[in-house]
Amino acid sequence: MRIGVLGSGNVGGALGKRWAAAGHSVVFASRQPDSADMAALVAAAGENARAATAAEAVAASDVILLATPWPATKGVVEGVTWEGKVLIDATNPLLPGLKGLEFANQTSGGEQVAAWAKGAKIVKAFNTVGYNVMENPEFGGRRATLLYCGDDSAAKSAVRELVEAAGFVAEDAGPLLQARLLEPFALLWITLAMVEGYGREIAFSLLRR
Amino acid sequence: MRIGVLGSGNVGGALGKRWAAAGHSVVFASRQPDSADMAALVAAAGENARAATAAEAVAASDVILLATPWPATKGVVEGVTWEGKVLIDATNPLLPGLKGLEFANQTSGGEQVAAWAKGAKIVKAFNTVGYNVMENPEFGGRRATLLYCGDDSAAKSAVRELVEAAGFVAEDAGPLLQARLLEPFALLWITLAMVEGYGREIAFSLLRR
Repeated sequence: MRIGVLGSGNVGGALGKRWAAAGHSVVFASRQPDSADMAALVAAAGENARAATAAEAVAASDVILLATPWPATKGVVEGVTWEGKVLIDATNPLLPGLKGLEFANQTSGGEQVAAWAKGAKIVKAFNTVGYNVMENPEFGGRRATLLYCGDDSAAKSAVRELVEAAGFVAEDAGPLLQARLLEPFALLWITLAMVEGYGREIAFSLLRR
Repeated sequence: MRIGVLGSGNVGGALGKRWAAAGHSVVFASRQPDSADMAALVAAAGENARAATAAEAVAASDVILLATPWPATKGVVEGVTWEGKVLIDATNPLLPGLKGLEFANQTSGGEQVAAWAKGAKIVKAFNTVGYNVMENPEFGGRRATLLYCGDDSAAKSAVRELVEAAGFVAEDAGPLLQARLLEPFALLWITLAMVEGYGREIAFSLLRR
């Protein structure tokens, strides 16, 4: 494929290099295609890669990877002609300082429950997989991961023990605020299982190295 | 531990049985603790389990699993005394018909980009892991999963090929609307990697059986 890369930073560089190595033709876009940085990137990506302006990169490509920082995205996207192109959107609408997403939910069920359960020490857990996975968290010798979050460390220790007693690999996702991420993660499981044809016998495992 | 289960359905039943089998003391709450359904659940859970009202189950327990359907949650939670208890919130604020979450974000970066890139066929992809995972998606012989979503099937086929060329296991998460879930999933990776001490060398793998 002929691939254009808008936003030739860490993400665009990593993927462009892999795709060039796999034999695809890659054009890295830059406001300064003749700069030393772009020359170094093109050299690292090998003979299938070159640098050009954004307009040239899009015009020359069938598939365009968008890997710009969010604040730059609107200007870059509106500045080129897209008709018929495949656009891979790898951006995230991040707020500065990892404070969240520009379009994020503003509360969560977990925070609502905490407001209702006066005096309780709340831990959000066991919401991200179906009951069938709780009955058996083993997938061909691998255990599913269960993420939990909360603000009370003693409560979290107790819950971690119960997550492990249920057969999962327990992973601490941070404060209760993270329920805003674990609940969409639950809906991801639910929609894959129930709508997208994966069926209920799926789960996520956190890989580390 | 002494564990109470509020909402003795599929999730509460599955976990209560596992915890009772692991030697914990489990009280399943029900409005009708003497019903045949509860007798069957208690029998299946074995000698460490019994049934009681919600108030009794909470009073008798140190840790309470909340596994109620969302519309029932507020009433159940506000109806008991929580002081000093650990509450495990396994609920999700689901809208009827899997239509989303009550507190969900109402749009996504992916949908914004689609509005800006007139004529393009958009696929959301490569937003859920860091560039270091894109440089090498292998974790001790296991490949990380990469989820993508979009509304154009030909565009998705091309992107799937590029996801695989980059070394990932490609999984179709459905229509572009699912960007509302893949962007919070990205923030989950980001906060685990950058805030919660996991470091950048993590990724998720979708398990199937």
